Order: sequence, then structure tokens, then C-alpha cells
Amino acid sequence: MTTTFDAATAVSRRSDGRYDAYPDPRFAIVAPGSSTPPAVNGGALLATVLRAVLTESPHPYPVATSAHFLRIAQLAPAQVEVAWLKQGGTAATARASLVQDGRVVLETTVTTGALAGDEAAAGLQWTGPPPGFPHISDCVDLGQWRGTTGPDGVAGYAAQVEVLFDPSTVGWRQDEPSGTPEMRGYFRLREERDPDAYLLAMAVDGLPPVVFGLGAMGWAPTVELTWHMRAVPSPGPLAVQTRCRHVSSGWFDEEAEVWDSRGRLVAQSRQLARVGRGPRRSLAEAAGHAVAKAR
Amino acid sequence: MTTTFDAATAVSRRSDGRYDAYPDPRFAIVAPGSSTPPAVNGGALLATVLRAVLTESPHPYPVATSAHFLRIAQLAPAQVEVAWLKQGGTAATARASLVQDGRVVLETTVTTGALAGDEAAAGLQWTGPPPGFPHISDCVDLGQWRGTTGPDGVAGYAAQVEVLFDPSTVGWRQDEPSGTPEMRGYFRLREERDPDAYLLAMAVDGLPPVVFGLGAMGWAPTVELTWHMRAVPSPGPLAVQTRCRHVSSGWFDEEAEVWDSRGRLVAQSRQLARVGRGPRRSLAEAAGHAVAKAR
Repeated sequence: MTTTFDAATAVSRRSDGRYDAYPDPRFAIVAPGSSTPPAVNGGALLATVLRAVLTESPHPYPVATSAHFLRIAQLAPAQVEVAWLKQGGTAATARASLVQDGRVVLETTVTTGALAGDEAAAGLQWTGPPPGFPHISDCVDLGQWRGTTGPDGVAGYAAQVEVLFDPSTVGWRQDEPSGTPEMRGYFRLREERDPDAYLLAMAVDGLPPVVFGLGAMGWAPTVELTWHMRAVPSPGPLAVQTRCRHVSSGWFDEEAEVWDSRGRLVAQSRQLARVGRGPRRSLAEAAGHAVAKAR
Repeated sequence: MTTTFDAATAVSRRSDGRYDAYPDPRFAIVAPGSSTPPAVNGGALLATVLRAVLTESPHPYPVATSAHFLRIAQLAPAQVEVAWLKQGGTAATARASLVQDGRVVLETTVTTGALAGDEAAAGLQWTGPPPGFPHISDCVDLGQWRGTTGPDGVAGYAAQVEVLFDPSTVGWRQDEPSGTPEMRGYFRLREERDPDAYLLAMAVDGLPPVVFGLGAMGWAPTVELTWHMRAVPSPGPLAVQTRCRHVSSGWFDEEAEVWDSRGRLVAQSRQLARVGRGPRRSLAEAAGHAVAKAR
């Protein structure tokens, strides 16, 4: 049985070698206070592009994916174009673009490779100290988010994804930001589905913008995101930590680490995003903005 | 007067819109114990590509550059091809490739934008705690490196760049790696030249592979590197810190932060690279490997 996530990020190969795709309203987000159409979550778009790449790749995993988000995807037909630049024994690299109406919405470069399972691990193994995550039973749901239902009554991103937060990192919900741009939370689909490369692509950008911790509650579009898949994740919720190092000139960075249920580092990312404009928001809007991280 | 660095990374526009470039032996590195031709430092190639992009960009700075290194550049004519995917008011994005013999050597996607000077800073400003750097007078030179002179007697990368290291991070030189994949050093050209976007592109990959700290002294080719320019650097040496979070399946990540002489965070990067093969090296070879971080 196909899950909603797999259906929403599916691609089908055309006779001309391109892939048909369709940015899916079930992973769309309604910008709070906006009358513009819902925008599909960037991670879901990334998963869509990766499906096309991995269909053709000589290696199984997207070890390095660079993505530049150029335009807001429309809820309309799209195409994925894949061009291989190198297919080597250790790594292969493709340029892959999500295109609508002849314009690039999302431009990616993907290098694929192999990742050994634990049992097959050879050579140097080393991991830095993990972030401290509270037990999942001590984490909190953000509750009913604005944006869960779009203008057509379609369930959106927040209806598909559950994030349970370290309570110390979501003071911004009560208009009491911690003053530290850092979040920790457990990320999973609401439906039963084990994590894999596609879900990791969504998890690395699955939490609200990290600058909420500094009280900057506006819409924060991702401009560029690069993520590295480091291991094949085990079943169970993903523990995601995000942090920021620098905010200036309207730009901020957000780094994410994703750890699986067995405590292994499975993905890393850094993105550059724009600090949201507009005034500091009320609590009600803040909750809505928790899902406002689309492009 | 044109500096060696500027001459070595120069591009000239052709009538067909592409740019002529020439990977320069003055920034090449001889792989220790290798009979293969010298490989030009990846940062120097990145600077070359960025010159072509910034020539055409509506915005002045490369705020987000993603680079996938596919092949070793030959010391031979090359072309830079630039294709703009978007030119917006806040950001513009180009695909830019360094090509030799019709094959992509280095594939990049570059998003350009504005960075406010300190005096013009408006909006949210925040920076995380800086790494602790020792005073530059307490740092150590690696001395005469192998690879400084190539087979033709041409001075290479190590003759152009000076890195003064935090002594606590270079135990690997005495065959006593610290066990922590972390390095700190001051980076500058040996010639008089203030840092800018091009020099930052070299600085983010300017230190030896961070896994030297774990005793993994082999040639460590970068597969993917993304860097973000966060501020316009002030004159003076750049303080560079690198660290790693995870090594497995033959892959390691290396994150760099670059701080300018006024203590501002000016660039960030993360790269995914291959752990070098081959045995643990002797001291003499280790010193040679200090400059072996080309692709």
C-alpha cells in the first residue's frame, strides 16, 4: 500500500526521459495571513527530485545533495529533468531540476554513493558527541497548527508530519523565545512509514525556522540547503537538532543533525534562509508560523 | 599590480559568452609519493568559477555556493560556463561549470545577494560564540612542505599560502594525532592581498584534512563543498576553525568557520570528502600531506 508521503512525492518517467511530478497539496503550507496559494514544503519537493535521480543512479544513496530554491512551486504539473555529469565507481553526480512552465523552481546537484551497513562497517569510524535529547515522552506537540487545512479544506503539511519538541526550545510559542536559536524535536510521519533517504530530505528542514528562538517569527524562505546522508536510518522517530551561528543582513544559517532511533547520526544539513519580514507575531499566529517554512 | 592569486584565478570572456580559464600550476599540489601530475587546489578553482559568475551577477556577493568536484583539473585550458536560472531583487542564482575537454571538472550552483556593511546593518543581528583561537604569535608554521615545488620546479600551493596553526591541533605532524578531528589556524596569502570573496572560497578549504587529527593521513579528496559568505572580510589574516562530526563508510564531513581580523564570522562551509586510503604515514610524508587536500 502506498503511503500518502510516497504518493505525494512520486514521479513517473516519460518517453522523453524527463519525469512527471505534481507538487501535492497534502504537503502544502498556508502562509498565515496570506491570501496566496499554499506553498508545498521544500523537503517534499526535494524528495520528489531525489526519486528521479535515484531511479537512474548507479549508487543507492544521495550522499550529498545541494539545493537552491528559486521559486514557489505551484500546485500544478511539474517536470524533473536529470542530467548525469559523472558516473564513477565511488560516486556519481547528477544535476536535477524541478521545472514548471519552463522555469526552474528547485535546482539541485546530487552526488550518490554507497553507505555501509553497521555490520559491514570497515575502516575509520568516528562520531562526535550527540546533542542531548529529552525522552520523547517529555516532548510536546505544537497542537493544532494554522495551515493544517488550506483554502480548499485539504489537509496540509502539519496534518502529515508530527514533531514532538524539547519544551525548552519552544518558548516562542508563548511569546517567550529562549534567546537561543536552537531547537530539538522528534520528527515522524503521522502515518506508519519507516525513515529512508526521502524522509531524511524532509526531516533536515522539518522543524520551524530556528530564528523563532530569537523572536523572529516571520515567514523564513530557504534560499539554499545542502544535506548529507551519513547512514541508513533504522525504523522509528528521527531526533532532529537545529541551531544557527549567525544572523545578519537579513540572512541566517540553520544547521540540522538527524539521529535515528538507535542513536546514529544519519543526516546533516546547513541551509541559508531569509529572516522573515513583518512584525513580531501573536501567539496564535506564531503557532501558524510553525509550519510556515515552505518556499 | 595583479597578485599571483588574482592572475592564477583570472577568467576572460569569449565571444560565445563562455570564459577562458587556466588551472594554474602556482596553486597546484603534488600528491606525496605520487607520479601523477600536480592537482590544482580546489579553492583556487572555485575562485576562478566565482569570478565568471560575479562578472555577470546583479548582486555583489556569492552568499551561497554549492560545489561538486567531479574530476581532477588538468594544467591545461579550461572554460567556465555560466547559466542564470533566476535574477531576482534579493537573490540571483546561476549554474556555473568548469569544463575541460567537454567534461565537467567542477559543477557549482551560486546564489548571489547583498551583504550589508556594519554601518548599514539593520534588522536582527546575532552571532554564536566564537571558537577560541590562540594569539597568532603562539601559532606554528608547518615549515617546508613537500609539494612546494612540483616536477618542473614550479612553486605550488604551499608557496602561495601561509597557515599558522594552533599547536594543539597539529600533533599529527609528530605522529601524535590529538584524537579529535579539529584544527585551528590563521590563513593568508604570502603576498600582500586583502581577503575578499575569492580568498574566502580558498580559505574554507585551506587547512589540511580535519581527519589528520584522527591519524588518517591519506589523500582526502573533497566530493562536495558548500560555503556561505556571511560578511565582507576586513583586511588581515583569516582565523579558520575546522571540525568533523562523523566518519564512516569512507566518508567524512568537515565544517569550517572563517573569522576576520575584527572578530566577525565571515564565512561558513561544510564539505563531504573521502577518507584517504593507504597506510598511516611517516612524519616526513605527513608534512607533505598537509598540502595534499586538492582534488
